[in-house]
Amino acid sequence: MKELKSYLETNKQRFLDELLDLLRIPSVSADPKYKNDVRRMAKATADHLRQAGAEHVEIHETAGHPIVYGDKMIDPKAPTVLVYGHYDVQPADPVNLWDSPPFEPVVKKTKLHPQGAIFARGACDDKGQFFMHVKAFEAMIKTAQLPCNVKFMIEGEEEVGSKNLEKFCRENKKKLTCDVVLISDTSVIANDTPSLTVGLRGLCYMEVEVTGPNKDLHSGVYGGAVANPVNVLCSMIASLHDAKRRVTVAGFYDGVEKVSGKERKMMNGAPYDEKTYMKDLGVSDLMGEKGYTTIERTGIRPTLDVNGIWGGYIGEGAKTVLPSKAFAKISMRLVPDQDPKKIEKLFQKHFENLAPKSVKVKVSAHHGGYPVVVPTNSVEYKAAEKAMETSYGKKPLPQRGGGSIPIVAMFDQVLNAKSVLMGFGLDSDDIHSPNEHYGLFNYYKGIATIPLFYRFYSEMKKKK
Amino acid sequence: MKELKSYLETNKQRFLDELLDLLRIPSVSADPKYKNDVRRMAKATADHLRQAGAEHVEIHETAGHPIVYGDKMIDPKAPTVLVYGHYDVQPADPVNLWDSPPFEPVVKKTKLHPQGAIFARGACDDKGQFFMHVKAFEAMIKTAQLPCNVKFMIEGEEEVGSKNLEKFCRENKKKLTCDVVLISDTSVIANDTPSLTVGLRGLCYMEVEVTGPNKDLHSGVYGGAVANPVNVLCSMIASLHDAKRRVTVAGFYDGVEKVSGKERKMMNGAPYDEKTYMKDLGVSDLMGEKGYTTIERTGIRPTLDVNGIWGGYIGEGAKTVLPSKAFAKISMRLVPDQDPKKIEKLFQKHFENLAPKSVKVKVSAHHGGYPVVVPTNSVEYKAAEKAMETSYGKKPLPQRGGGSIPIVAMFDQVLNAKSVLMGFGLDSDDIHSPNEHYGLFNYYKGIATIPLFYRFYSEMKKKK
Repeated sequence: MKELKSYLETNKQRFLDELLDLLRIPSVSADPKYKNDVRRMAKATADHLRQAGAEHVEIHETAGHPIVYGDKMIDPKAPTVLVYGHYDVQPADPVNLWDSPPFEPVVKKTKLHPQGAIFARGACDDKGQFFMHVKAFEAMIKTAQLPCNVKFMIEGEEEVGSKNLEKFCRENKKKLTCDVVLISDTSVIANDTPSLTVGLRGLCYMEVEVTGPNKDLHSGVYGGAVANPVNVLCSMIASLHDAKRRVTVAGFYDGVEKVSGKERKMMNGAPYDEKTYMKDLGVSDLMGEKGYTTIERTGIRPTLDVNGIWGGYIGEGAKTVLPSKAFAKISMRLVPDQDPKKIEKLFQKHFENLAPKSVKVKVSAHHGGYPVVVPTNSVEYKAAEKAMETSYGKKPLPQRGGGSIPIVAMFDQVLNAKSVLMGFGLDSDDIHSPNEHYGLFNYYKGIATIPLFYRFYSEMKKKK
Repeated sequence: MKELKSYLETNKQRFLDELLDLLRIPSVSADPKYKNDVRRMAKATADHLRQAGAEHVEIHETAGHPIVYGDKMIDPKAPTVLVYGHYDVQPADPVNLWDSPPFEPVVKKTKLHPQGAIFARGACDDKGQFFMHVKAFEAMIKTAQLPCNVKFMIEGEEEVGSKNLEKFCRENKKKLTCDVVLISDTSVIANDTPSLTVGLRGLCYMEVEVTGPNKDLHSGVYGGAVANPVNVLCSMIASLHDAKRRVTVAGFYDGVEKVSGKERKMMNGAPYDEKTYMKDLGVSDLMGEKGYTTIERTGIRPTLDVNGIWGGYIGEGAKTVLPSKAFAKISMRLVPDQDPKKIEKLFQKHFENLAPKSVKVKVSAHHGGYPVVVPTNSVEYKAAEKAMETSYGKKPLPQRGGGSIPIVAMFDQVLNAKSVLMGFGLDSDDIHSPNEHYGLFNYYKGIATIPLFYRFYSEMKKKK
């Protein structure tokens, strides 16, 4: 491992420069105007895999953005790790809130990142994190220390619901055969408190349209007599939570797993300081389901949030309009064993029932995903635990994450493979927000930890 | 009057062509990018006044858009009519819902306008209506039949709250001295049911900003633990109406005048067919304050409407963001004797009190205006009544309008002059909406009726 360490040290600057170049490509998957940039990013990813030493590298076309594949098979008897990541990024809006342009990465020091952090859209989610795997792989190849087979599957549609990944997996089951899926798209509790994600919330993402009159009206002439779709939508949204901040969608909690008092206690043992949490977010109070802590609210409880709302006149000044339509994007985070397909139907029915006769309602679904729980007694978890313990000098805590990586459940189902969620970001890295960043400490720590996982996993698998 | 009639007949086509030219100027006062067009429109208005025979024509600069003035003084002992109108128009958004470009007027026949209607932003509100006065004035000058003094005051900021008009009136009291203000910026009940507006609702227009976390957050990582400003704003807006659709702002109804059963009965005698009303708007049900009819809800009851709302991700597809901010434009229509300044304060206090500790709220006011009631026993009302009765062959009904013309109360106060609200549009003319239009019948009927008002008013004043 000494050779490997020195390789990593020697190539540090290049590893950073290469990542910065990738961050300059605005591979926003949600917005059609970036289509060529997404493609450019796929090509850059494939080139890097090839240069690192991967074989059978290909850019696989899909109905949407392409999936990049590459592998290195050293021994049919050795275990196979499938690395999953995504090269697409969230939209950068609202761009005016960025301190530096989202696709012109800069390295700046912050309180939490005294060694510096890279500021750019995708720095942490997920370019910085998937690229750690490419660089760790390169180091293992160049120092002849790769202990297992490796396959890479880096997609370009994670931020829009991985629409074409399942089809790809089903059609390429054999090619993707593996013993474990390794994913770095989550975070650690803190740089001095490593953790492994053992649970992820599922997702159900809906869009609603409320139509009142068939055209925009003068609010003086019609106001007070005709249902205003914005007012109606607000009332409907308000009614989606009760006084205890529980979601009122009928049947919503039916499948929710009851977490034991013991597990809740352990969970709440994670370092968390409410004052710091509130101060960092600039809020004077928190708001969530009665009877649960913040860690529980974001870990083991399902939630509902409006992600966007619009209707009527939203320009400068005043327009006295009674609008014809109002819209909202509403998503729900789900926990085991809620079924997103079922919740989608429950929500649709509930929302349609909420509407007064004076408006029409249209409800449609964006992508969804199943919630996930990772067992902590498996070989893959133990290997990841040991790798992190070795590199951080501290045993990682098991942690339930609030976000969703819907494909984890799909890998289990289609590829029959469990996933290891070994992410290296921080929750404060502002992924999906302006000024997304990724610590240099985290980036290099990831590159150093990944080869340890490969080694321990191969050893443990052999013994078994 | 025979000569006048033939003048109007002979010049019909030119009167229309001139109006179409004015409608080609996008004089949107709310949007700074149209500033030069607004100015161009002011100049065109001044030119038309001059050509029609007005003297002392000037484009008066203000802190915003200019006010156009012109007059014709024939006899210091004759009564003086001050014509008020506005040459600015509402924004054309949403432009994609127009059947023809908003600033390229076309004449098309409709069910309600078998003789044709001019489709363009401002066709009715208020270019078509103020220009009737210019053309009627021209006809009286050219046929030497002007019986009184006339002053024109055509402003360019009515759609943004007439911000600089009061100052202009205060500073030019002497120049604006008059016996009556004549305004065509309202509607008749139907083309076979003439009416005069005897009441207008006041207006209080607020903008609110709700801030949750200090930046956009990942809804998976923070959802359920941190107050979502969109959800909070929706709850706050929902709570602004109670189950009877009464406005819950504390003190809101304190000043509301109790309208007598007799007046309510008369009011409800106006032709109104609920089925047709709903069908025209494409709604299956109406929504408004319990215990009042549609005519009452829009005439004698105060109301509250959201005119615009926005927050979070409103682009294509899905973004799992817990937004930092949410906004709404909320306006209230007021009735006698509600004071918009007082309501502004009540609303602000109420809204601030509604906010949970987990968010910050900013409330600011756009323009407002006082409600108005016009007495039906005055000389000016009687003259307008007789003019309409003569031209329509039917006595006009007194009608309370739902909209607001805040400057009517101001004219009373500053110029000590009552207003006559003799409008010729229809409520269905889609003012403030896509496909605004104005009937040719209405345009020509207005031009023919205005000289009758001048004549009857002068005669009645002399007798008095």
